[in-house]
Amino acid sequence: MAKSTKPTGKAAAAHAVSPLAPKTFPKLPPLAGVRLATVAAGVRYQQRTDVLLALLAPGTQVAGVFTNSKTASAPVLWCRDKLKGREARVLVVNSGNANAFTGRAGQEGVQEIAGEAAAVARCRPDEVFLASTGVIGEPLPTQKITKVLAGLALQGAPGNWRAAADAIMTTDTYPKAATATALIDGVKVSINGIAKGSGMIAPDMATMLSFVFTDANLPASVLQECLSAGVGPSFNSITVDSDTSTSDTLMLFATGKGGKHTAIAKASDNKLKDFRRALDAVLLDLALQVVKDGEGAQKLIRIDVTGAQSDTAAKRIGLSIANSPLVKTAIGGNDANWGRIVMAVGKSGEAADRDRLKISFGGHVVAEHGMRAAKYSEAAATKAVAGRSVEIAVELGLGKGAARVWTCDLTHGYIDINGSYRS
Amino acid sequence: MAKSTKPTGKAAAAHAVSPLAPKTFPKLPPLAGVRLATVAAGVRYQQRTDVLLALLAPGTQVAGVFTNSKTASAPVLWCRDKLKGREARVLVVNSGNANAFTGRAGQEGVQEIAGEAAAVARCRPDEVFLASTGVIGEPLPTQKITKVLAGLALQGAPGNWRAAADAIMTTDTYPKAATATALIDGVKVSINGIAKGSGMIAPDMATMLSFVFTDANLPASVLQECLSAGVGPSFNSITVDSDTSTSDTLMLFATGKGGKHTAIAKASDNKLKDFRRALDAVLLDLALQVVKDGEGAQKLIRIDVTGAQSDTAAKRIGLSIANSPLVKTAIGGNDANWGRIVMAVGKSGEAADRDRLKISFGGHVVAEHGMRAAKYSEAAATKAVAGRSVEIAVELGLGKGAARVWTCDLTHGYIDINGSYRS
Repeated sequence: MAKSTKPTGKAAAAHAVSPLAPKTFPKLPPLAGVRLATVAAGVRYQQRTDVLLALLAPGTQVAGVFTNSKTASAPVLWCRDKLKGREARVLVVNSGNANAFTGRAGQEGVQEIAGEAAAVARCRPDEVFLASTGVIGEPLPTQKITKVLAGLALQGAPGNWRAAADAIMTTDTYPKAATATALIDGVKVSINGIAKGSGMIAPDMATMLSFVFTDANLPASVLQECLSAGVGPSFNSITVDSDTSTSDTLMLFATGKGGKHTAIAKASDNKLKDFRRALDAVLLDLALQVVKDGEGAQKLIRIDVTGAQSDTAAKRIGLSIANSPLVKTAIGGNDANWGRIVMAVGKSGEAADRDRLKISFGGHVVAEHGMRAAKYSEAAATKAVAGRSVEIAVELGLGKGAARVWTCDLTHGYIDINGSYRS
Repeated sequence: MAKSTKPTGKAAAAHAVSPLAPKTFPKLPPLAGVRLATVAAGVRYQQRTDVLLALLAPGTQVAGVFTNSKTASAPVLWCRDKLKGREARVLVVNSGNANAFTGRAGQEGVQEIAGEAAAVARCRPDEVFLASTGVIGEPLPTQKITKVLAGLALQGAPGNWRAAADAIMTTDTYPKAATATALIDGVKVSINGIAKGSGMIAPDMATMLSFVFTDANLPASVLQECLSAGVGPSFNSITVDSDTSTSDTLMLFATGKGGKHTAIAKASDNKLKDFRRALDAVLLDLALQVVKDGEGAQKLIRIDVTGAQSDTAAKRIGLSIANSPLVKTAIGGNDANWGRIVMAVGKSGEAADRDRLKISFGGHVVAEHGMRAAKYSEAAATKAVAGRSVEIAVELGLGKGAARVWTCDLTHGYIDINGSYRS
């Protein structure tokens, strides 16, 4: 039965649930080869689960993409290195502390947690993957995490997806998950994913934290190719506030414990087409849930850029619009201020011709031929930006480059949350 | 006598005066060769002056720097073109409408205003310079401006600097002006400047509107070199919201009607050293006034980046910090969240070594050696960000590159102003 997405934790309820939250938490099936357990370890938050342990079947293959930040967190550095081994047996995630910019102690903390997790799961430390999210620069209370791992390993059970999504939240106002099934050569496989936001979200890197699991039997190299391709139009096409996290982590685990299917050696194998479609759908679903829970978000804004000189140019223009505080505040205020779209196109640095530019809000053309559209209607334009979902289209008229990006509006809620997050 | 900087206009008082406003409006001397007049023409605002006419002595030399926006306004395109003529006789500025993205009608409006201004000043249209600031995309009510020019030309008088600074304001909460004197080869010359902000302010381009006048006798080529050099560490080192205007205009006019001094043919002439120092001081003063009146600003934030691989890298890192919504909201909330400085350094794309990075707030070292500083004091760090003026220092430890940039905090005031600016 579908459950409400309303968070139950005390701290999670500090900010009202985003009006863009899905009505219900999706029903994720148990996934063969994945056991989950969570606990309130008191890393930072009180009375709220904050450590997730995922136990993975022997032979589970792993892929990942991570932040390009030059000040990446200790867990990111660890995971990036351990990915070479291609196999994963354990995933440990904590919320409340990012273990970023925590120096040698932070690195040692990662080693201690990996060591303890390996001991309880009877695997090698380099088969343990880790992620931490929360405040940057605070020393990680490593012991609080290591001491709960043995208990979590005993509790580990299939099907705790809601609890898993809850345990990794920070300022998120609702837990985020998505699921899909696909056929590989006629054999059904499942994909389950969870994610958390909800500030310090910027694209062109990876995302905040997201973990996707499948029972398909796919080698790490194939997983990596699927994941690297899938992150472009999903997590790398969203932005909340243009700020890129030190902890961005997106990982994909394949246990191979679902139905037996043909061996797949290459991501380009035609038999993988349906799996990739399903994976892309899960990634996009999770990415959009992150934007919808952007700090203070009241509206989801989709921006389609077409006619640019290249896809790269289109994406840069789309992000210039999506990251503009003036565009985001105007839409938050139900103001169809299309002049700010003109500004954001102009500042992107990409080729644009004022007289070929065409801008629409919700299908209503507001500007073309270098000026306000002849059929411009203030009422129609305002209506197009007044709802929960706003669609902006920008046609450059220069070439065939296209991109779609998503963001949210910038509201008082963002200021409230971020003026006092740490303290 | 010094006057209060409190605006007197009805609309200008809609938002409280920035707490960072100078206590008094500076005393600008009349400048030989410059006559000023303003009027409430009803371009957009009611009961508020919105057109400025500056009449310049024959032979006045002119230089300018403009926005790099690909969707620059009609007046910017006009001025950039007319700068080739090197001489200026009239400057017409209106607030309330940017005449940007207004198509052929916008261009024709510029021609009409220049034609009428030339007629009343008895000069050629290409000696008329124009600037418009306000809403983008609204058709400019050209007639409202052309019909007041003859009257303004009759009123034009030396010394109306306060009125001139008032007339060009939009969301500014106080008028901005600066003055300085300098010696050129022993002869005293004066420099007066005015500027307006206060949103859509981003660097790497020019600025919003600023006009600087001197009675020195300097050729356009020398003025241009001085101005282009001076804009780097002043207007191009400030940001309010990372959004670059379509109207950014900074112009420098030299009437040559002050005391007679030696002819100067090159900007590098040693006799020009004191003039350039004074000009740079005026530019920086105006630029800082723009930041201090950033929409919603409650604090002025200075960011010094040192030890970067190059000055360019240092500036990019400084701006990455200065444009980070998370940094700006934290400081607005008196939260010494130095982890967000780490994040902003990391996302800049410039070389950074976590373990060499050193971050200070108001001289108090908060982070070094890849972690929180051993002598870190929460009380000292909080005190450093709690005042009206916040100083952040980032030492990269990699090279000799340095830059200083300024920004303001991000507060509820910014959301209030920009959620309903157009309507």
